[in-house]
Amino acid sequence: MKAILVGLGSAGFSWYKRLKERGLLAAVVEVDPAMKIKMGDDPFPFYTSLEEALETTQADFLVNVTSPMMHTKVNAAAFDRGLAVLCEKPISFDYQESKEIVARAARERLPFMIAENYRRMPYIRKAKQLIDAGAIGAISSLDIQFYRYHHVQRRYTVHILDDIGVHHFDLLRYFTGKEGTAIQAKLFNPVNGWQEEGAVLSAYAFIELEGGITAAYQATIASKGTETPWSGNWRIEGTEGAIEVRDKEIYLIRDHMAVKVEDLSGIDETDTLTEFLASLQEHRESETSGQDYLKTQALVHYAHVASATGQMQAILVPQMKENGEMTA
Amino acid sequence: MKAILVGLGSAGFSWYKRLKERGLLAAVVEVDPAMKIKMGDDPFPFYTSLEEALETTQADFLVNVTSPMMHTKVNAAAFDRGLAVLCEKPISFDYQESKEIVARAARERLPFMIAENYRRMPYIRKAKQLIDAGAIGAISSLDIQFYRYHHVQRRYTVHILDDIGVHHFDLLRYFTGKEGTAIQAKLFNPVNGWQEEGAVLSAYAFIELEGGITAAYQATIASKGTETPWSGNWRIEGTEGAIEVRDKEIYLIRDHMAVKVEDLSGIDETDTLTEFLASLQEHRESETSGQDYLKTQALVHYAHVASATGQMQAILVPQMKENGEMTA
Repeated sequence: MKAILVGLGSAGFSWYKRLKERGLLAAVVEVDPAMKIKMGDDPFPFYTSLEEALETTQADFLVNVTSPMMHTKVNAAAFDRGLAVLCEKPISFDYQESKEIVARAARERLPFMIAENYRRMPYIRKAKQLIDAGAIGAISSLDIQFYRYHHVQRRYTVHILDDIGVHHFDLLRYFTGKEGTAIQAKLFNPVNGWQEEGAVLSAYAFIELEGGITAAYQATIASKGTETPWSGNWRIEGTEGAIEVRDKEIYLIRDHMAVKVEDLSGIDETDTLTEFLASLQEHRESETSGQDYLKTQALVHYAHVASATGQMQAILVPQMKENGEMTA
Repeated sequence: MKAILVGLGSAGFSWYKRLKERGLLAAVVEVDPAMKIKMGDDPFPFYTSLEEALETTQADFLVNVTSPMMHTKVNAAAFDRGLAVLCEKPISFDYQESKEIVARAARERLPFMIAENYRRMPYIRKAKQLIDAGAIGAISSLDIQFYRYHHVQRRYTVHILDDIGVHHFDLLRYFTGKEGTAIQAKLFNPVNGWQEEGAVLSAYAFIELEGGITAAYQATIASKGTETPWSGNWRIEGTEGAIEVRDKEIYLIRDHMAVKVEDLSGIDETDTLTEFLASLQEHRESETSGQDYLKTQALVHYAHVASATGQMQAILVPQMKENGEMTA
């Protein structure tokens, strides 16, 4: 298996090392020729034109680590050549565009996976395993806090949900195995935020999921307080107990006694590349396929709508129709 | 100064001891004669009829520790005799009734205070002092988590906001010195709650306050996880730092360094009775007077409305009109 890597920014370079290490790299595409220096004396073909790379390189899949606004264009070019795609989140910032590209991959049976790495963190994987084993009974609620100070240069206007919250919303679906049914949200730039035209640095949301499960979400990247990990801190309440994932540690609470879970063994592979390759070899849908991840992006989309209207918003979960289009 | 104590249930008996200790007790009223046994051999007059007690006892004020549904009737009877009243929260479960009794007290210039004790807890008082001293700059947001398992016998249907959340909403106003302007809320019985007709065991809310301050609130009395104190855990973010009140301890965070605040000195008196007596002697409004506390109850009232409609609800802060009625 060989891959064309598109994008050699900081995330792109980490993909570069990963693909190189595993002998999977066919070629690199990066519009900024100055980036080539990162490759040192490595012999991989380097292109500044995606079209040229696609024409001249034999590959099985493409890894898309471009900036979010470029995602769809690059994914579409890969699909034009019949290539499978492993793409960094988001599918696209534009929800309609996300639905269209996912529908196309499904229609043309092209493997398309989003490299959602949060649900592959070992302590997240372990918490899910405990839940599935019935450690807390049926899930009742999930309360998530995410606090960081993260003021960095970006090529686009920062938006806490599109940039980071989408990971947490994906974990909501992962832990529960359920889809959202309704959402209320408030997206805003807090008093202690920095000035940036259009920036959305904080989010509050409450989400209802199938089966009466509820989630409350508080997130900011303008926090002046103690920081949480990128994955946030989680309180997952059930009918028989609770799991708290705090600072990357897991606590299992039964009868109000908290026990730290030290044994993280018995969880499956935890990187997106391995999952993608396995899905290709086994001709199955990957865990965070475009079709699945679109349901996560639906949560982000309806959070935007709910915040704009100040109203509880029903969530229409996107489904593939018989005519190959996406509903909702 | 002498008081008539009305109500000798568990909260009432703790008031009994407090008033007795300070030589303030004139008489006790309790409809259930079996309760008299709590008084042992104490010589204080005991009545099962409020009217009879009010007719035969010389007193300066009445302490109302009846069940919430009785509050207004008892307060009104005291006002009929020109007595000042120190009343346990809530003013009344009925918002309209709360406005009317507060308006009456104001019109007739009768001192009327709600015994709101949460804002008199030393660590709460200290956090407020730090905020007022500018320790975190201007307040930006307040995030509150309250988790307990509290399944007890009550004389009325449990409602997390009316019963407990009202204290937290009062602290929001206390810490910020601002009033709520809008609220979204979801009040519900969670999957892991017990069955009780009409019970509301969990609440989510986000509240906007004057000056762009925001608050997010998560609360449940059906928690199977680790419990917070009754006052909840607080993260108060500001423009220059943050204060976290966790498990009754205060942490001051500046430049992302958390320092535990050990010195709770320099804060003023911390019990409601002392404040009430001082306000009577100084002929001033008490800190949590009925007129002030009505603004706290407004938050609870509009949370109910917001939850019922699924819409962001503007908060109309009740004000005394020239004709002696309350607005909003």
